[in-house]
Amino acid sequence: MNAITNVHYYPEDVLSHQVITRLIQAGAQETDAEATTRALIHASRIGVDSHGVRLVGHYVRLLQTGGINRRPTIIFERTGPATGQLNADGGLAHPAAYLAMNEAVQLARETGIGTVGVHHSSHFGAAGAYVVEAARHGMISLIMSNSDAAVSLFGGAQPFHGTNPIAMAAPVKNSDPWFMDIATSSIPFNRVKLYRSLGLQLPTGVAANSAGHSTQDALAASFLQPLGGEGFGFKGAALAGLVAILAGALTGAALDPVMVGTDEEQNYQKRQNVGHFAIAIDPARFVGHVTYELAMNRYLELLRSGPSVDPLHPVMAPGDREWKEAKRRATNGIPVDFETIQILGLKV
Amino acid sequence: MNAITNVHYYPEDVLSHQVITRLIQAGAQETDAEATTRALIHASRIGVDSHGVRLVGHYVRLLQTGGINRRPTIIFERTGPATGQLNADGGLAHPAAYLAMNEAVQLARETGIGTVGVHHSSHFGAAGAYVVEAARHGMISLIMSNSDAAVSLFGGAQPFHGTNPIAMAAPVKNSDPWFMDIATSSIPFNRVKLYRSLGLQLPTGVAANSAGHSTQDALAASFLQPLGGEGFGFKGAALAGLVAILAGALTGAALDPVMVGTDEEQNYQKRQNVGHFAIAIDPARFVGHVTYELAMNRYLELLRSGPSVDPLHPVMAPGDREWKEAKRRATNGIPVDFETIQILGLKV
Repeated sequence: MNAITNVHYYPEDVLSHQVITRLIQAGAQETDAEATTRALIHASRIGVDSHGVRLVGHYVRLLQTGGINRRPTIIFERTGPATGQLNADGGLAHPAAYLAMNEAVQLARETGIGTVGVHHSSHFGAAGAYVVEAARHGMISLIMSNSDAAVSLFGGAQPFHGTNPIAMAAPVKNSDPWFMDIATSSIPFNRVKLYRSLGLQLPTGVAANSAGHSTQDALAASFLQPLGGEGFGFKGAALAGLVAILAGALTGAALDPVMVGTDEEQNYQKRQNVGHFAIAIDPARFVGHVTYELAMNRYLELLRSGPSVDPLHPVMAPGDREWKEAKRRATNGIPVDFETIQILGLKV
Repeated sequence: MNAITNVHYYPEDVLSHQVITRLIQAGAQETDAEATTRALIHASRIGVDSHGVRLVGHYVRLLQTGGINRRPTIIFERTGPATGQLNADGGLAHPAAYLAMNEAVQLARETGIGTVGVHHSSHFGAAGAYVVEAARHGMISLIMSNSDAAVSLFGGAQPFHGTNPIAMAAPVKNSDPWFMDIATSSIPFNRVKLYRSLGLQLPTGVAANSAGHSTQDALAASFLQPLGGEGFGFKGAALAGLVAILAGALTGAALDPVMVGTDEEQNYQKRQNVGHFAIAIDPARFVGHVTYELAMNRYLELLRSGPSVDPLHPVMAPGDREWKEAKRRATNGIPVDFETIQILGLKV
């Protein structure tokens, strides 16, 4: 479901130019503004509008208040033959995450797998932006990020973990990659807000009221519940914990439950110390590039040719919907909501 | 819920001795029998009876029919500074998985992260057995395995992925590790069989009838649905795909949808070519051992002290329930069902 109503459509290059300009205006360094724009446009291009150019207002605000460092010095330190740590210095997260993934790819070329931990970062937008890059270099990759508390534990009565996304891309010969990008909650909190404004009931087992009881009443919903729903939320909570440990405890970032939230005005000038964890894997060091490519083709062929419950909705691989939407938007343009149009100073 | 009724209790060492003896009797090499027993006892010890000594009958049958190679030669090949491939030669999976994890740990000591792909393996039991080992060496680790088709895709009308488990352990100073071991379906098919025999309704969104429609009727349930349930099964399907790619396509194992199943008699003598993927990560190469340990302690302290919805059921970290059960069973013994008692020739 798309949260955007009352939108205008813009070609990617026009939009991209305006986003860079606006971020620089807010004090970002040019290369940082470019990287952030690239990540936002990735999400907008494939239809993930919640993490697309809509976020520019959020980043502009934090750049202006100092919640995001306008002049960070990113420092990458190689800590082992296959590992590195990256200090994002409180700046925009996107340049740091692109750099971390790029370093992981370089390490993987040397050692077969490369891993970079990122700390003192901020909200990195759509996790998928970074893995798609690594796929272009022939690497399988994963990235994850912790975030401030928004999701309860299984049976917990308050938010504890962030929505802690996990993204992975696997290259496919002559095609877009296999591509997943999922939060470890069932829905983002934006969805709750959308259901509120539409007067709709939430699905079961996705959100809780302030006492921690699962609720379908969007107005009563106070925080999210982990993926898996009422019976199996312990699995989603474990996956959120996996991210909290690898991207948080292991990198030196803030732990989810004590991380500063950015939604409240009194926190606008505080730094979050978000953590990310990037992994790149070279198929050449396992079954070999050619055999891997053949296996991926066969896997996707089997997947897409299988029967679906609803004949009108064929089974899709992760990413198929997104790449299809990217084609549509290359023609029709990218939808931008009215508030963001104002922030970007776009012509309507 | 525990599938075991009509059980007797045995001390771990007695049970362990009988399982080794029975596997050797069925033709397994001594070191293989020892490794398999260790993995089965791990699961039985922590209360995961579905993957405990109950499985010995399954392995005995496949050893006898040749579905599992009685005299495998496991070959490990280092393929890069941080990577290796392990050919399990169609033997019992447990020695191969332990060896793969051990090699990953050695690699991680050298390079910071070590990764081993395993192919031509078989069913490795509880994924958790292997990560717990790595935690004893101070390493964070993950292991995953693909398996034969049992779980539909999101909107799919037939089984496609295996239950494809993901396990992770993270060492905790002076304590049992943080420890998760989850299938990427909501439930295992054993649970469906248990509900059938108990005449109970299944939870919603966990299984489908032969047409692929979600059903709560255990008798009508034909295959499983991915974690996330009716609205969010695309996330579970993506996670199952992550495992299918890393443990399957990348290692040279059979792909889930075309892997031989071991439940049907006509397949008893066929080899599955299951794949696993093991990763070990050295905290020393990231934030450093001491800071990592402090962060994990703080994380778990925050987690366990948080409010729960039901005051009688405090919030737990992944693994807490299992380590508690292990203590109980160290005193009370391990429950064994009647059929397994017969297979093992245990005294009642």
